[in-house]
Amino acid sequence: MYNKVTKEDISALQAIVGDAEVLYGDSINPDYAHDELGGIEKMPEALVRVHTTEEVSAVMKHAWERNIPVTVRGSGTGLVGAAVPVEGGILLETTKMNKILSLDKSTLTVNVQVGVLLMELAAFAEENDFLYPPDPGEKSATIGGNISTNAGGMRAVKYGVTRDYVRALKVVMPNGEILTLGATVAKNSSGYSLKDLVIGSEGTLCVICEAVLKLVPLPKVSVSLLVPFNDMKSAIEAVPKIICSKVIPTAIEYMSRDTILFSEDYLGKKFPDTKHDAYILLTFDGNSDSQVEADMNTVADLCLELGAVDAYIVDTEERKKSVWSARGAFLEAIKASTTEMDECDVVVPVNRVDEFIKFTHDLSEELNIRIPSFGHAGDGNLHVYICRDGLSEGEWKTTLSLCFDRMYEKAEQLGGLVSGEHGIGYAKKEFLKKQYGPTPIMLMQQIKRIFDEKNILNPGKICF
Amino acid sequence: MYNKVTKEDISALQAIVGDAEVLYGDSINPDYAHDELGGIEKMPEALVRVHTTEEVSAVMKHAWERNIPVTVRGSGTGLVGAAVPVEGGILLETTKMNKILSLDKSTLTVNVQVGVLLMELAAFAEENDFLYPPDPGEKSATIGGNISTNAGGMRAVKYGVTRDYVRALKVVMPNGEILTLGATVAKNSSGYSLKDLVIGSEGTLCVICEAVLKLVPLPKVSVSLLVPFNDMKSAIEAVPKIICSKVIPTAIEYMSRDTILFSEDYLGKKFPDTKHDAYILLTFDGNSDSQVEADMNTVADLCLELGAVDAYIVDTEERKKSVWSARGAFLEAIKASTTEMDECDVVVPVNRVDEFIKFTHDLSEELNIRIPSFGHAGDGNLHVYICRDGLSEGEWKTTLSLCFDRMYEKAEQLGGLVSGEHGIGYAKKEFLKKQYGPTPIMLMQQIKRIFDEKNILNPGKICF
Repeated sequence: MYNKVTKEDISALQAIVGDAEVLYGDSINPDYAHDELGGIEKMPEALVRVHTTEEVSAVMKHAWERNIPVTVRGSGTGLVGAAVPVEGGILLETTKMNKILSLDKSTLTVNVQVGVLLMELAAFAEENDFLYPPDPGEKSATIGGNISTNAGGMRAVKYGVTRDYVRALKVVMPNGEILTLGATVAKNSSGYSLKDLVIGSEGTLCVICEAVLKLVPLPKVSVSLLVPFNDMKSAIEAVPKIICSKVIPTAIEYMSRDTILFSEDYLGKKFPDTKHDAYILLTFDGNSDSQVEADMNTVADLCLELGAVDAYIVDTEERKKSVWSARGAFLEAIKASTTEMDECDVVVPVNRVDEFIKFTHDLSEELNIRIPSFGHAGDGNLHVYICRDGLSEGEWKTTLSLCFDRMYEKAEQLGGLVSGEHGIGYAKKEFLKKQYGPTPIMLMQQIKRIFDEKNILNPGKICF
Repeated sequence: MYNKVTKEDISALQAIVGDAEVLYGDSINPDYAHDELGGIEKMPEALVRVHTTEEVSAVMKHAWERNIPVTVRGSGTGLVGAAVPVEGGILLETTKMNKILSLDKSTLTVNVQVGVLLMELAAFAEENDFLYPPDPGEKSATIGGNISTNAGGMRAVKYGVTRDYVRALKVVMPNGEILTLGATVAKNSSGYSLKDLVIGSEGTLCVICEAVLKLVPLPKVSVSLLVPFNDMKSAIEAVPKIICSKVIPTAIEYMSRDTILFSEDYLGKKFPDTKHDAYILLTFDGNSDSQVEADMNTVADLCLELGAVDAYIVDTEERKKSVWSARGAFLEAIKASTTEMDECDVVVPVNRVDEFIKFTHDLSEELNIRIPSFGHAGDGNLHVYICRDGLSEGEWKTTLSLCFDRMYEKAEQLGGLVSGEHGIGYAKKEFLKKQYGPTPIMLMQQIKRIFDEKNILNPGKICF
């Protein structure tokens, strides 16, 4: 169906991006065959590192004419195989499109190439006294990856998700045409929002090359509160009550003692408190000490009423570091605690999180498999990890499949969805199809065909 | 191409919604032929008033089988002809789908039928100590209309637009199938966002029947500041500088003395100050008096440095009423000041608003036509009115066409878009096509065909 990459193709690609930026055959590092979670693997025939939108356009024109599949990859931090070139062909790496092009203080926007890393953008914004609110745990992801999955992160409770911060996109269509979607404006009622269709489309509709992103003024005060509970049920049940209290924290994360201990081991760093079974970690931000303090006290008092053992203010730099570096390392720490794992990134209404977590605990006992989890209690997005530990290949596959079926079914019953922020990619396609049913999937398939009638851009993902 | 509505169709429709809710022939009020601005007129063959999603589904099934066009209409407050049944057929009125179905305080969401009016939702939210932030000037629009145009309103500077508050939609496809798009969740990376495609699609893709909308806790304090300037240039130039100061007001509106005088005449009510040529009106909200006051003082001082004549705090109920009722009446007041008018709802980057307004002043002189304007200085969305006054039909058409061409061209040059919040509908199609060029328009046309292969739902709008 597709053409293989030939020597002539390599020469043509080298002419576009320079000889050193085209790798092929054994010169490609095997890590390019998979993403962060692994499991789905396929080597590309050629790895092409692009620097500009114009280069992307030229590469796509060539691939379109030659009918060669192209998969876009940022830092490769994905967890659902979205950046794995399952049909081979060209892997288009964007990490060298890493320029912050301009900052416009009077429209509160920054214009970036999509290979800029989240941590680079966050630091740049902060240096200029701004905040880029989306804050996914994986700081070395590219902004392009964040846009492609509509990444959410920890601050979604107060600030929303990546979609809410994308004003405009410069994209390359599968045939090489360059389009601008949206504009540096705060309102838009000018036809169907193609921009919003592209956000979260995991590299299947077009190649996102540049983005105009909205910033907010950096809040002057930001304080965290670590609240231990004797059990997970009490901890999680407190969250919708906090939200009912009409204080809106920036973030509400939950974590279990187990996960914290893995993280201590993994980082070789102590967490301030590990005596209790369950914790919620809240952040509050604002421009006035007194307001942030008042919010924090309201929530601390409420938590104590609801059975919290204590409420520690995390205000020193040292304590902030120990708490947030632990939180940031959870994924890696759980990964290091087992032989192999797979993850489930469901999102449920925030008042159903406790039911879902209880369900995973019961499932863990029933199937005799370890299912640690952590996540965004305040926005309903959970990161649940199924650990293989000592299971044989056969047992693992059977148990994992059963476990996934049960969890996605439960999430749907609770009014939730398959993915809160990691996407569908290759790994979660069947669960998306099962939840949405034929019409929405058919609409998505046809939308894909409109953008990419040759199906050369990231084939085999999301709805196919 | 389409079938006409027959007696059999009327009987079938009556069987679905009840005899009293189907009007046809001369029994239909001629107002149903047009929207608020007029200009585009066509009577429907049948007017059908629906009460439930199931009724909408049954009506659409019938229309689909019979190949009869259907146009959805809320309160008819549109300004671009989007709800005018240009191909005749059925006009589906949603104003009786006016139930607030549930309020969920722990997910901060409200579930409504789309015929609920914006003012009803705003009042309901406030009674429950919540705020529904989108605040378009036209409070008697339905929520369905707001979603269909991705309406913005005055609070977009701080709170964003309707899109940012839609969690989930229950919709009826042109063939009658009922779908739920999105969920009561804060994050979503589960396939292409069909929900976001439908938001702003002006009734062309499916019939929006119910919506789950996000609320925020009602800010405890809200104060406005009225700042007079000696000329419009100084007033508007102050706005990007206010934004640079990193205080984010809830709203920043601009208004000229002329417009205020029309409004005084129209309402028979005095505005607090009409001695100066130009005004900006700002709102600040928050939970602490001291913080809101500090923000307001920062901005007031900055405005005075930038040439403001004064800065009045609008804090008494009486003064608030006189200022905001004037602001709310601008459209009607300008309409009453002339024989006929048409409007332009461009949005430009917030630091280019001054250039655009200066351009309309120059154009007004050059073409010898009155072009009053007001709008959202803080988010770049302007409402510009071209007044016919004493022009003959021929002169009016020529001048209006020239005026529109020049204004949309200028907005594009400044990095803006055709519509900030009123939509494209029927009236602005040519300007959308001109700005976007063939590929985005072709993508939109094909998306329309995917949802509605028979093209029975609101035909002839946006991209056709």
